[in-house]
Amino acid sequence: MSATDRIREHAGQGATTVAARARRRLRADQARQLADLLRHQILTGGFEAGTLPHETTLAADYRASRNTVRQALDLLRAEGLVDRLPGVGTVVVGRKYPHGLDRLMGLAETLREHGTVTNEVRTMGPAPAPHPVARRLQVAPGTDVLYIERLRRLNGLPLSLDLTYIPLDLGTALLGADLENTDVFRLLETITGQGLGHAEITLEAVNADTHSAAVLEAPRGAAVLMLERLTHLADGRPVDLEFIRFRGDRITMSGLLHRSL
Amino acid sequence: MSATDRIREHAGQGATTVAARARRRLRADQARQLADLLRHQILTGGFEAGTLPHETTLAADYRASRNTVRQALDLLRAEGLVDRLPGVGTVVVGRKYPHGLDRLMGLAETLREHGTVTNEVRTMGPAPAPHPVARRLQVAPGTDVLYIERLRRLNGLPLSLDLTYIPLDLGTALLGADLENTDVFRLLETITGQGLGHAEITLEAVNADTHSAAVLEAPRGAAVLMLERLTHLADGRPVDLEFIRFRGDRITMSGLLHRSL
Repeated sequence: MSATDRIREHAGQGATTVAARARRRLRADQARQLADLLRHQILTGGFEAGTLPHETTLAADYRASRNTVRQALDLLRAEGLVDRLPGVGTVVVGRKYPHGLDRLMGLAETLREHGTVTNEVRTMGPAPAPHPVARRLQVAPGTDVLYIERLRRLNGLPLSLDLTYIPLDLGTALLGADLENTDVFRLLETITGQGLGHAEITLEAVNADTHSAAVLEAPRGAAVLMLERLTHLADGRPVDLEFIRFRGDRITMSGLLHRSL
Repeated sequence: MSATDRIREHAGQGATTVAARARRRLRADQARQLADLLRHQILTGGFEAGTLPHETTLAADYRASRNTVRQALDLLRAEGLVDRLPGVGTVVVGRKYPHGLDRLMGLAETLREHGTVTNEVRTMGPAPAPHPVARRLQVAPGTDVLYIERLRRLNGLPLSLDLTYIPLDLGTALLGADLENTDVFRLLETITGQGLGHAEITLEAVNADTHSAAVLEAPRGAAVLMLERLTHLADGRPVDLEFIRFRGDRITMSGLLHRSL
């Protein structure tokens, strides 16, 4: 008996609820399934010349109905990944840039192949460290730390809004530095003469509030990939606490996980 | 000259634009800054008994105006993290669960301390592998693979919607298994008699489409943490391709990054 026959037999015998559910399966479920497969192709440059195959071809390739294909393309269009051009078909319009998740890297570093990162410094100056900042940077509460707020762009397009806290002994040296064109990571390594060590990170997906969306030039409520990161020097000292909002439609985070540590 | 004096001098000399910007700084910027600090405290259980200090206390602690504090709390309320209760104050209502980013783990495994994961199998059955699935699972295109769609809950609350593709030789053995209460990872290890090896992952933040939001019982357009993951056995064979939508308001991903590999 083939594996498929065995599954069909099994479905016939015991899994009637599942089988019945499968038969009733909504087109919306099928469209989501197809959209996820196409999304991967889009993000990895799998469509030559940035044009998707014709709906009929997609329907045949994915054994889906034309209506399901249309609904899948609608989902990708709503995400800003594709658009429909009269006389051309469905073209890839959104581009997401891959931020490495395997190594601790600054933005310009990780996106080097993709273009130039520039930073608009919206705010910079010393401010007394609130308790949670002081504790994590291991300074006394109320001690001044350097606060920096930057809007970061790749090839001119807004990518992220970064709020950064740095102990003042290092922060002072940052003031004369070329923050507009250089990652804070690289500057910290230059200033301290030692490499960075590790960072604790937390990633979340949140809806952008109205003001953050406006700064990032994204629609209100746009999905944002939020990264909180506490970076330590190679000697273990915590030196850089950041709260970063990446535009969800412009960044992916990619890495490798292992089963055993 | 103290570091702070040097910064003030520097601001006075060269960085007038930045200083001017800082003086004009919007309350919305200050509220975002404060909200990010409070968010960290909320997510890490930093407020005893789940109640935030009074607005006046927060204003003093963070050297912010009452209005800024109120606006920050509004941001956190819009995210579903806190609520205001008459006579009580601002209380933590949202809870996000930490999914490990350091080791390849199944959901029940990573959330073990936080409660019980149950899986509603919405669809399960063999289906011909479309080209991108076949390529990644290293089977011939059109070969049947097992497709599984699960809504996963923690302590009854919807957490994620998972679309899974598994080669049929392993998939067949999954059909009789207790998928409702067991991670696919654990089942694959039992079936193959070997451990999992590694997985390539990609994380994105997307707005949930109407149908996915409804399945996850989240508001339309809710931010979703989308995880694509191709998992390999210890011997290198790819055995599990997944597209996972986590509710952004219920999951954080946490890990450690190192500067050198």
